[in-house]
Amino acid sequence: MKFSDRILQIKPSATLSISGKAKQMKAEGRPVISFSVGEPDFATPQAGVLAGIEAIKRGESHYTLTSGIVELRKEICNYYKNRFGLDYVPEEVTVCTGAKPLLYEAMQVLVNPGDEVILFVPAWVSYVEQLHLAGGKEILVDTMKTDFVPDIDALEAAITDKTVGIIFNSPNNPTGAMLDEKTQRQIAEAAKKHDLWIIADEIYERLSYGKNHVNILQAAPDIKDRTLIINGASKAYAMTGWRVGWALGPKEIVSKINSLQGHLTSNACSAAQWAALGALQGAEEDVEKMRLAFAERRETILKLIRDMPYLKITEPDGAFYAFVDIKDCPVPDDMEFCARLLEEKYVAAVPGTAFFAPGYIRISYASSMENIVEGMKRLKDFLESL
Amino acid sequence: MKFSDRILQIKPSATLSISGKAKQMKAEGRPVISFSVGEPDFATPQAGVLAGIEAIKRGESHYTLTSGIVELRKEICNYYKNRFGLDYVPEEVTVCTGAKPLLYEAMQVLVNPGDEVILFVPAWVSYVEQLHLAGGKEILVDTMKTDFVPDIDALEAAITDKTVGIIFNSPNNPTGAMLDEKTQRQIAEAAKKHDLWIIADEIYERLSYGKNHVNILQAAPDIKDRTLIINGASKAYAMTGWRVGWALGPKEIVSKINSLQGHLTSNACSAAQWAALGALQGAEEDVEKMRLAFAERRETILKLIRDMPYLKITEPDGAFYAFVDIKDCPVPDDMEFCARLLEEKYVAAVPGTAFFAPGYIRISYASSMENIVEGMKRLKDFLESL
Repeated sequence: MKFSDRILQIKPSATLSISGKAKQMKAEGRPVISFSVGEPDFATPQAGVLAGIEAIKRGESHYTLTSGIVELRKEICNYYKNRFGLDYVPEEVTVCTGAKPLLYEAMQVLVNPGDEVILFVPAWVSYVEQLHLAGGKEILVDTMKTDFVPDIDALEAAITDKTVGIIFNSPNNPTGAMLDEKTQRQIAEAAKKHDLWIIADEIYERLSYGKNHVNILQAAPDIKDRTLIINGASKAYAMTGWRVGWALGPKEIVSKINSLQGHLTSNACSAAQWAALGALQGAEEDVEKMRLAFAERRETILKLIRDMPYLKITEPDGAFYAFVDIKDCPVPDDMEFCARLLEEKYVAAVPGTAFFAPGYIRISYASSMENIVEGMKRLKDFLESL
Repeated sequence: MKFSDRILQIKPSATLSISGKAKQMKAEGRPVISFSVGEPDFATPQAGVLAGIEAIKRGESHYTLTSGIVELRKEICNYYKNRFGLDYVPEEVTVCTGAKPLLYEAMQVLVNPGDEVILFVPAWVSYVEQLHLAGGKEILVDTMKTDFVPDIDALEAAITDKTVGIIFNSPNNPTGAMLDEKTQRQIAEAAKKHDLWIIADEIYERLSYGKNHVNILQAAPDIKDRTLIINGASKAYAMTGWRVGWALGPKEIVSKINSLQGHLTSNACSAAQWAALGALQGAEEDVEKMRLAFAERRETILKLIRDMPYLKITEPDGAFYAFVDIKDCPVPDDMEFCARLLEEKYVAAVPGTAFFAPGYIRISYASSMENIVEGMKRLKDFLESL
């Protein structure tokens, strides 16, 4: 079979060689500790579990609207009203099988071949691949010299007459950085000035440790007509496997996304939609409990990392990642570093290259305290052995 | 916001104006009977329900492999071995959120802009839209003068040096026609001769009434290396809303589909995968019970339709649709026919235009016997009033 150019250009994931090897070593009985996963290690809150089971028992096994059950979309509107004071109606909300397919769909809807889209680096790998799949071109604005906060002059300098939009996530994967109100207002100003759309991916918004998460429309209410918000049940409610995400935006783009989704996936799993509704309605306490657990792990891991030679870290404000600068190490190449760390100490971390940030490694602390303590001990041993 | 050319070219569905209107009229309290849905009206078999609930209780709420849990992929291999004598291994199988996204992904993987793909008309609308979304061009081979069975000379005549593949489904939506072994062997020969891939969509394979479903690789085992089989839990197991489909094919294409899927949707809902596994393992009796119920409804609806003026019908061998020729009617325009049938008699059917077959209407008999009898009475009244 001959394959399409678009699929041949998809790069083999830089994380795959590590995580594949980690899995293989685990299967062979080695005591692998993995810090490579991007999902909470907690169970889904009971409110979600029970709502999912009830839905199955009730026979919610038929197609729903492509955009999702109206009950869930109403609850998402309530959530955005209560949490951010934003007014959305169910027709401005669509539900899909995770935040990821909504990002893909949004790019398919908004990007023509040759269009440029601004991304802040370090950036989540799928943004770039999804952009390529739409024929778009990424313009990477480096934030590595500014504590992972975009410099607005650098943003302005990157915009050309081919630029159509800006995608960012806050809290950020992989850095954990959060963009404050002022920075988001500046991004919004640039979007208005150059007539760009904005995709604000706030899938990690419930996971912050000190700073308050700011939604870009709180910072700049006047860009609502050019903004698509992406969120979902995965990270806040420990519901990754259920695959339920949502997008909020102007009716015009939401209806275009629905047209595409109708030919692409149809609805998200019906029982999973009800489970997500149950979580939204009844899992606030669990969300806070999980956040506090992540906060404690974060404190521990930061303390342990600060105690190690060579490493530098910009404290993450949110998400569940420590993004560590290894450039002063005897092994400054992050691919080699991660490969050796796994081989020699059975510890899996993701090389920064996977996020267009060579010289860093991403350590997820969505792992038990026991694993964190033992894994960081091994990392320290590894560094001291270099 | 400016939208991409690919989304602007998506045609508003010809079914939407009818089904939207039917819903609205129902909401207004009119006694609407809908024959427009493409899903079984039965509940998911208990084996699926229980497996889904057990999986949720067990905490199967985390990411699975992008290609799906290996237990389900193994069971799919068993199914294809037992039912068709075909040998597949789990690495040649991938699971996604329905058959629809797998068809989309396959086209993204196989079709370059400008490539031509053969479809037999009447054809399911999403084939064409998915093809357009990949930049491909459909070549429609008309089967309406040959009882919905493709004429091989017409197929040969349609193939050009730009043709890359053939997509067909048997049993067919909307006609219910099934392709026999000889026809499928001829299609396979053409594919070999012109170096084309084949996508064989057999989502309705469990729903046949007299004829045996033939998998194309039973007819032509030597094209396994150029064939992708699409199937899923939706139609056979009444599991539409769960969204679980699967594809079987050469490792090379399955791994490409997985690469794309990793950036597009990740895994299908984890609990739904376990539910599908439960159904595959324990719902054979339910599948047969539902098939027999459909068979009875089919007999009834065909008898009632044969008793009506103006209508002609080629007996459907499978699926759950009657595809009725209305060209001899005083209202031969299917769009107008369906609009008036809904307005005057509160009966919803899908115009053939939605399947590139004007002059026909599709009546789904995935509806209760009571609805079928009352709905066909109204259709007859309507015809007699013309």
